[in-house]
Amino acid sequence: MTRLRSRSTSFDVAALAGVSQSVVSRAFNPGSSIAEETRKKVIAAARKLNYVPNSIASSLTTKRTNIVALILGNMANPFYVHVLHNFSQRLQEMGRQVLTFTVDPGAESDDAIMRVLQYQVDGVILTSAQLSTRMTSICHERGIPIVLFNRYIPGSDASGVRCDNAAGGRQIAEAFLAAGAKSFAMITGDPKGTTSQDRVRGFVERLLEEGIRRTDIEEIEGNSSYEGAASAALKLFKNRKRPSPDALFGINDIMAMGAMDALRSRLGMRIPDDLMVGGFDDIPEARRLPYQLTTVRQPIDLMVEETLSILHLDDPTQQIERGIDRPITGKLIWRNTIPVPPAYRWAADNSGETDAS
Amino acid sequence: MTRLRSRSTSFDVAALAGVSQSVVSRAFNPGSSIAEETRKKVIAAARKLNYVPNSIASSLTTKRTNIVALILGNMANPFYVHVLHNFSQRLQEMGRQVLTFTVDPGAESDDAIMRVLQYQVDGVILTSAQLSTRMTSICHERGIPIVLFNRYIPGSDASGVRCDNAAGGRQIAEAFLAAGAKSFAMITGDPKGTTSQDRVRGFVERLLEEGIRRTDIEEIEGNSSYEGAASAALKLFKNRKRPSPDALFGINDIMAMGAMDALRSRLGMRIPDDLMVGGFDDIPEARRLPYQLTTVRQPIDLMVEETLSILHLDDPTQQIERGIDRPITGKLIWRNTIPVPPAYRWAADNSGETDAS
Repeated sequence: MTRLRSRSTSFDVAALAGVSQSVVSRAFNPGSSIAEETRKKVIAAARKLNYVPNSIASSLTTKRTNIVALILGNMANPFYVHVLHNFSQRLQEMGRQVLTFTVDPGAESDDAIMRVLQYQVDGVILTSAQLSTRMTSICHERGIPIVLFNRYIPGSDASGVRCDNAAGGRQIAEAFLAAGAKSFAMITGDPKGTTSQDRVRGFVERLLEEGIRRTDIEEIEGNSSYEGAASAALKLFKNRKRPSPDALFGINDIMAMGAMDALRSRLGMRIPDDLMVGGFDDIPEARRLPYQLTTVRQPIDLMVEETLSILHLDDPTQQIERGIDRPITGKLIWRNTIPVPPAYRWAADNSGETDAS
Repeated sequence: MTRLRSRSTSFDVAALAGVSQSVVSRAFNPGSSIAEETRKKVIAAARKLNYVPNSIASSLTTKRTNIVALILGNMANPFYVHVLHNFSQRLQEMGRQVLTFTVDPGAESDDAIMRVLQYQVDGVILTSAQLSTRMTSICHERGIPIVLFNRYIPGSDASGVRCDNAAGGRQIAEAFLAAGAKSFAMITGDPKGTTSQDRVRGFVERLLEEGIRRTDIEEIEGNSSYEGAASAALKLFKNRKRPSPDALFGINDIMAMGAMDALRSRLGMRIPDDLMVGGFDDIPEARRLPYQLTTVRQPIDLMVEETLSILHLDDPTQQIERGIDRPITGKLIWRNTIPVPPAYRWAADNSGETDAS
């Protein structure tokens, strides 16, 4: 073991700081009760001695590793990158760390969960990925809370936090209708994902209510990515035999952006003059000058806080909360890809912040 | 402890699979010698029993946690998101996991390193963030290899893997000169970061060699972000008293993209007719139809492999390799933001892949 040397211990730190060893241990344990001034004194002594507590060893007694696993299924969608960033920052503030697992989009996360369990993590957050109900049961049996972020697993008792995707789909349909659209198209995402399914369902339901015929709502799969949506949009609009739809719903922003770029660059279409476009998520990229996308904002900060509250990281003795499903309503953000009807002008003035750099 | 239950042990798995306990342990230990068929038999038995090995407990004997820490300083630049994705996938293939730490851009990572050390990680990868030389010493003293990804710390003996940023800056200057540019501007990144400094240095050096005066090379800071570069570009080109430069070097792609969008949308400028633009990184986003950015490609796969080879994850007894600094040459990718001079047509036809969706 050429890499190991003698190191200072918590005893040395306690001696230098003039406190007991248990105070040193509390100073490094997130959520422990300790006066801030004492904590600072301990940290200063630790720094001087290059002392670092061994979280791994202490986890064997506390049964807490202070690690939360985040399973990510689609890093091609910037929304999930923002989600990762947000969780990472919040968990660090709370003295926890994120163990990142990536799985291929659409792939099952069962293997990732088996790996997660080996690390005795304090909790699991699963985004944009599939998971079998058997795996959520295994996590629960082992005392590890799991929260599904922005999806749910039918038949599972895992708790989830999500935007009300169906209601958001309805909001976009409503905006198109208010702007006078009569025929519609959707670029959809992962057909196995509840997020895409729900947005589509809400969108279509609202249109049918208005008397739109199902044949006037076209649908094409866009692979949940910029590139996939760009190809899909061209397939949809090139060499058409029937008239083009008035409005296009990209069921997430990155797909709406891919479609806009392809249709403008390749087919010279003007937006919203030739085609209205609506998105979903309100990723920061959607605010950029070439897009100024009208979209539904997912309240990501709120969703992150809800997730953390279900995980109960500060109170591991609390029973795991199962079956929680509290959809959070998104907000329609009016920008420039759907003409704002007079009745909505007031809302548009108040919510449509753009990159006016 | 309401969250804990009795679980099957490696003894149960060994009995079911008909192997010894040490074979079970080898089956779950990345890099162990074990026949693939035997490994599969053990995994099948483990699945049946819902058995999961405890990596944390076994790390106390093996001194290996199979966790690698990745410290990220700038998630606003998609290049580092791709870096994270790439490391995450490669390390998972190798049976390792990524512990993610984010620090504010430009902020020191010393606190993150102290946290990293608590988790007894097998190695540290640091990207786009500052670090004191003292912290690299602490890692080395504790036997933890650290690799700086795409930067170096002057005066430190930490090993690093990076693109030859100065040479890449020269390549962009060369392309502008070949296309006939006479006056120049740069949008620069983190002034404390070696990446930005080196790209600027190479770019300016090449221009000075060609007899361009330093006063004909303007410079403005763009905060390494899309939004920062959009503002900087407008500041640079709006209400000018002197003639506009012929060519703009965004020292990373995301800044070049921000500048292009702002100049086109706000000032109606055409690229490359009114202004040539060059970038650096070749992020997938730079290939998109509205950008088709001429840029320098960082060989990210190669850089990731180099980093992993320096970490020696499979052979922890090996001495930590210090002071390695092997700059890897990037490749100029001709697309549409710099007119291709006749002498370069051949190169352009062969390297300028675009999103031709």
